[in-house]
Amino acid sequence: MLNAIRDLDTTRSFDIMSSRTILKSTYPWTKSPLLASAPMLNIAGPQLAVSVSSAGGLGFLAAGFDVSSLDHNLEVTARLMKQSGGMAQQVYEETGMLPIGVGFINWGADLKVSLAAIQKYMPCAVWLFGPREQPDDLVPWVKEVRGVTSGRTKIWVQVGAVDEAIVVAEVLQPDALVVQGSDAGGHGLAHSASVLTLIPEVQDALRERDLTHIAIIAAGGIVDGRGLAAALALGAVGATMGTRFLASAEANIAHGYQKEILRASDGGLNTIRSTVYDRVRGIGGWPNRYDGRGIINQTYLDAVQQGMSDEENKSLYEEELKKGDAGWGPKGRLTTYAGTGVGLVREILPASRIVEDTLCEAGDAIRGIPLD
Amino acid sequence: MLNAIRDLDTTRSFDIMSSRTILKSTYPWTKSPLLASAPMLNIAGPQLAVSVSSAGGLGFLAAGFDVSSLDHNLEVTARLMKQSGGMAQQVYEETGMLPIGVGFINWGADLKVSLAAIQKYMPCAVWLFGPREQPDDLVPWVKEVRGVTSGRTKIWVQVGAVDEAIVVAEVLQPDALVVQGSDAGGHGLAHSASVLTLIPEVQDALRERDLTHIAIIAAGGIVDGRGLAAALALGAVGATMGTRFLASAEANIAHGYQKEILRASDGGLNTIRSTVYDRVRGIGGWPNRYDGRGIINQTYLDAVQQGMSDEENKSLYEEELKKGDAGWGPKGRLTTYAGTGVGLVREILPASRIVEDTLCEAGDAIRGIPLD
Repeated sequence: MLNAIRDLDTTRSFDIMSSRTILKSTYPWTKSPLLASAPMLNIAGPQLAVSVSSAGGLGFLAAGFDVSSLDHNLEVTARLMKQSGGMAQQVYEETGMLPIGVGFINWGADLKVSLAAIQKYMPCAVWLFGPREQPDDLVPWVKEVRGVTSGRTKIWVQVGAVDEAIVVAEVLQPDALVVQGSDAGGHGLAHSASVLTLIPEVQDALRERDLTHIAIIAAGGIVDGRGLAAALALGAVGATMGTRFLASAEANIAHGYQKEILRASDGGLNTIRSTVYDRVRGIGGWPNRYDGRGIINQTYLDAVQQGMSDEENKSLYEEELKKGDAGWGPKGRLTTYAGTGVGLVREILPASRIVEDTLCEAGDAIRGIPLD
Repeated sequence: MLNAIRDLDTTRSFDIMSSRTILKSTYPWTKSPLLASAPMLNIAGPQLAVSVSSAGGLGFLAAGFDVSSLDHNLEVTARLMKQSGGMAQQVYEETGMLPIGVGFINWGADLKVSLAAIQKYMPCAVWLFGPREQPDDLVPWVKEVRGVTSGRTKIWVQVGAVDEAIVVAEVLQPDALVVQGSDAGGHGLAHSASVLTLIPEVQDALRERDLTHIAIIAAGGIVDGRGLAAALALGAVGATMGTRFLASAEANIAHGYQKEILRASDGGLNTIRSTVYDRVRGIGGWPNRYDGRGIINQTYLDAVQQGMSDEENKSLYEEELKKGDAGWGPKGRLTTYAGTGVGLVREILPASRIVEDTLCEAGDAIRGIPLD
């Protein structure tokens, strides 16, 4: 039996090598393991995406659910990339493929508008998330994106459960599954395991179905090299970080929000999954199965402890907006999406440093485990 | 800066080596990394504990909140240990220290009765969890247990948040912190991060306070070697598994319960944290901050979807009990505590095999990560 386990593991290592080889040839400027910045709505703009890719990661630009500014943002991204220096720029010049991914929120994103921008700028990946019907509503996206880019733009699909991973893998045949666990900040499945159990079970499910060419990318709770190393041990070939990049120099983020990210700790106690942060902002499009994790503030406490109506809470939120940066904080009302790893974020750094430090620390974390 | 990070990591490796060295000298029959079986109430009996320790792990006997059978169970444990063969038995014979831990649920456990049994059988560790007041109610436990055993019985305290870890570490100075994340089956903090972010933040907090001699043991969502490897990468020196040992040959568990553990998958969707499973069984002692994760069944659905009263739900539960093994399952009503990793549990194995396979797979998972 020990032999059987060792055989199984050899297969597993082979799978990982194989996915890695595919990733490396697809994104030749990236270092190993693959580290991506998440397409955080309104926050992951051209500068963050370009800095991450220039440092050997894979930067994602947020397109979100309203894609009207996508063309402009990709134009800025392309211009920044041309000035960035380094291997990502070189790949861009040689291949015409923009070494940046674009993240869509599919319950709202317009396919036709998005396709035009994708065809024009040829991003290296699209990250699809949050369709009304999973996977049906993504079928035209996958088909059309592959069509207009001759398959050069790779398809990443975010999932948060094993069942969802299986149906997405089988029906959509994406290039990567972004497997998001319960620790994630911002939107994800309201009921989810952490990546600790989710990734191994998804890995086994893919293996049983001979779908091991699909790369598993971990999301949710990865904030530093220890988390990245853990994701690799669990069976992922790479990871994405969102919360960590909120405290990057390049994030499009209010000073008050960023300050709150540095202040908050102990995310299991001080963040919560809820829909109230969308309701007070009048964002009503998310399908029922999703909610978002944010730092607990007065908006949440009033809703839960006082049973405050959405109408009153929304009006107080709008008043709070006038305070600007002072509207964030535990006594404030402005939405502060963040994952449970927020306590591990202690300083604002350039995105390139975050990428480099995380990769370095991941290697050290793995090498530091005594094997005897 | 890269040098600074490398220096930090060298310190980290040293911490881990140091905790490991302490563990190895404290529990000399154990293999590295330390793998413990959780003291699952009514399920972790003498046979499971002895089998785990005999295989080079650390078996925990459940004492729970009603310790009236503890003396008897330790007597059985001691007898089985004397017949077990192997290194754990040898340690027992040479030292008189029973190479088994005992897990208490401290809101109910009687200190005087427990102390008498601890003094008589000298278990190698106690695992303290769930006091009404944390850490105050545990102060006499720590003092008295150390007193009657001259410090030979080591103190493990379970926590589920960074704040709790800090106060427990500072006030109680335990030998080990069992850091339990949100994926765990059975009882834990109702609001918690997974170990993915919890362990690194606890590790950093201990380091800042020069408390790195306290071993960090991961709990919650560790079901196989991949999870164990991830726990080590995150900064733990060992891990405990509960859900995996539900499907061990030695668990005191109903056939219907065990069958349901093998059937269930996708624990993020199919398990839930709730207090209803205690309420229908008339277990009212848990402090408010705790609930328990179990497989979603009719008891939960009726409470949440139908708004069924506890009285009616309890009466239906009691009817269901008469069905015996047929009372478990998604349409059943009998409590099936399990963690989100339940889908990774696919066969009943002897506990010794579970220990051996998990350790072997953890090594392979770590060695299988390509470092370049």
